[in-house]
Amino acid sequence: MSRIAYVNGRYVDRRIAQVHIEDRGYQFGDGVYEVCEVHRRAIIDETRHMARLARSLGELRMQAPLSPAALAIVLREVISRNKISDGYVYLQVTRGVARRDHVFPSVPVKPALVVTARAVDPMKLAATAEAGIAVVSVPETRWKRPDIKTICLLPNVLARQAAREAGAAEAWFVDADGMVTEGAASNAWILTQGGVIVTRPCDTGILRGVTRTTLLDVIAAEGLALEERKFSLAEAFMATEAFITGATTLVTAVVAIDGRPVGEGRPGPLAQRLRAKFHGLAARSA
Amino acid sequence: MSRIAYVNGRYVDRRIAQVHIEDRGYQFGDGVYEVCEVHRRAIIDETRHMARLARSLGELRMQAPLSPAALAIVLREVISRNKISDGYVYLQVTRGVARRDHVFPSVPVKPALVVTARAVDPMKLAATAEAGIAVVSVPETRWKRPDIKTICLLPNVLARQAAREAGAAEAWFVDADGMVTEGAASNAWILTQGGVIVTRPCDTGILRGVTRTTLLDVIAAEGLALEERKFSLAEAFMATEAFITGATTLVTAVVAIDGRPVGEGRPGPLAQRLRAKFHGLAARSA
Repeated sequence: MSRIAYVNGRYVDRRIAQVHIEDRGYQFGDGVYEVCEVHRRAIIDETRHMARLARSLGELRMQAPLSPAALAIVLREVISRNKISDGYVYLQVTRGVARRDHVFPSVPVKPALVVTARAVDPMKLAATAEAGIAVVSVPETRWKRPDIKTICLLPNVLARQAAREAGAAEAWFVDADGMVTEGAASNAWILTQGGVIVTRPCDTGILRGVTRTTLLDVIAAEGLALEERKFSLAEAFMATEAFITGATTLVTAVVAIDGRPVGEGRPGPLAQRLRAKFHGLAARSA
Repeated sequence: MSRIAYVNGRYVDRRIAQVHIEDRGYQFGDGVYEVCEVHRRAIIDETRHMARLARSLGELRMQAPLSPAALAIVLREVISRNKISDGYVYLQVTRGVARRDHVFPSVPVKPALVVTARAVDPMKLAATAEAGIAVVSVPETRWKRPDIKTICLLPNVLARQAAREAGAAEAWFVDADGMVTEGAASNAWILTQGGVIVTRPCDTGILRGVTRTTLLDVIAAEGLALEERKFSLAEAFMATEAFITGATTLVTAVVAIDGRPVGEGRPGPLAQRLRAKFHGLAARSA
């Protein structure tokens, strides 16, 4: 757990790290976030995460709390002060503190920035990856802009909780047409019986996962067949393999969907191969 | 502005009122809220607001932070300490503080409670009501459960901001079928040329406004014709009158929709009558 957190200009003991009750993140969910993997002391795919952060801020017309260079220093400082070798660093930017009113503050306020970091045991992650995870499908309930990585995550919370209660680790949202959109905190992939990797295009109501983007690089480098298209839950049931991608899960095999085994009900060779190749192609910044 | 806020058991100077960075309200929007009007030192429709709060908490399987009796005392204390005669009291309940993880905390944590209050100049409110407001239509972008009064309000923020930038005070969400759902922070009503008051039913993707419920009592008491049914933006353009309801706006006439005047472009007699009658039927609790 993060022992030191960065909060609006200060490095503070996490236990007493606080923000104002009228931070618009607290009253409106008016903020965005990023989670970057830390792997052997390096930040993975930092450039892509920071580019997505800039896009999220831009979509909501929020200012960046710090220059890219200053933010990079803060991320490293939080990682360093928490002695994180493997784990992740989390950052959250909100529009700032203002008297409660839905509209943007008429007098610009300083955006708020919180950064924390957490160590994760690589052995434990590897064990999860070797076992694979179960997912359950839930109806797509989110707003129309899941392409923006906002902290308005209640639908995701409820989906993950539904998964947990069904003995699964992730939930896949399924839209009104029966097509899988993405997971509560991951992108969704399948391998068809024809040997084609399929994942939903990013312009259709999903977040452009950074790990997803890097995995596309891996898939291209490996010369594997890929189709970026929507796939249905029914098609996922028939898949040879399935997996999720995310900054904390990397590539994790899905071994069951709604209680039905995927393929042989254990992680398949493709998911294991892609996971093994991932860090070879992902960008590392120390 | 609130000078004293109640935050998790303490009455504190609002300027230094803070919550933990890992309050799930801040990281996930995992919380609910209520706003009650304070009118001549009394809380308006407190019972209905507290019933709705209990429903919101129940839908999200959150615990109440205090007993109803204790919460009633806190509301009064915040109103009293801030010397509010006319204005409103705001309360926010979140699932509490826990290490960041989408699923509900496996070890139950204490829900967080923040209460603030703000004075509003009755003359200023009356002036707004006399002038009426403009609204603009925006596409319905919210999640599928606007019936729960959550703090995941970013779509509402963006809608209100769009309204502000168009010179309007409220935005009306319009669904894919062209039907008005509700305002960013109010319910929507029209008076047809046939003299029927129309508002959308509550089981169809809107919040059950407390002011809306009480206004239904007023309409019944006045013997006016009412239809609870969906209405389209096109029908709203043809309306004789239009208005919004909310705890802070009460009944406020809409004089323009998307730049087109409603009726004669000024508050009509129905909206003014309903507003005048409102406090006569609303429940007051001192």
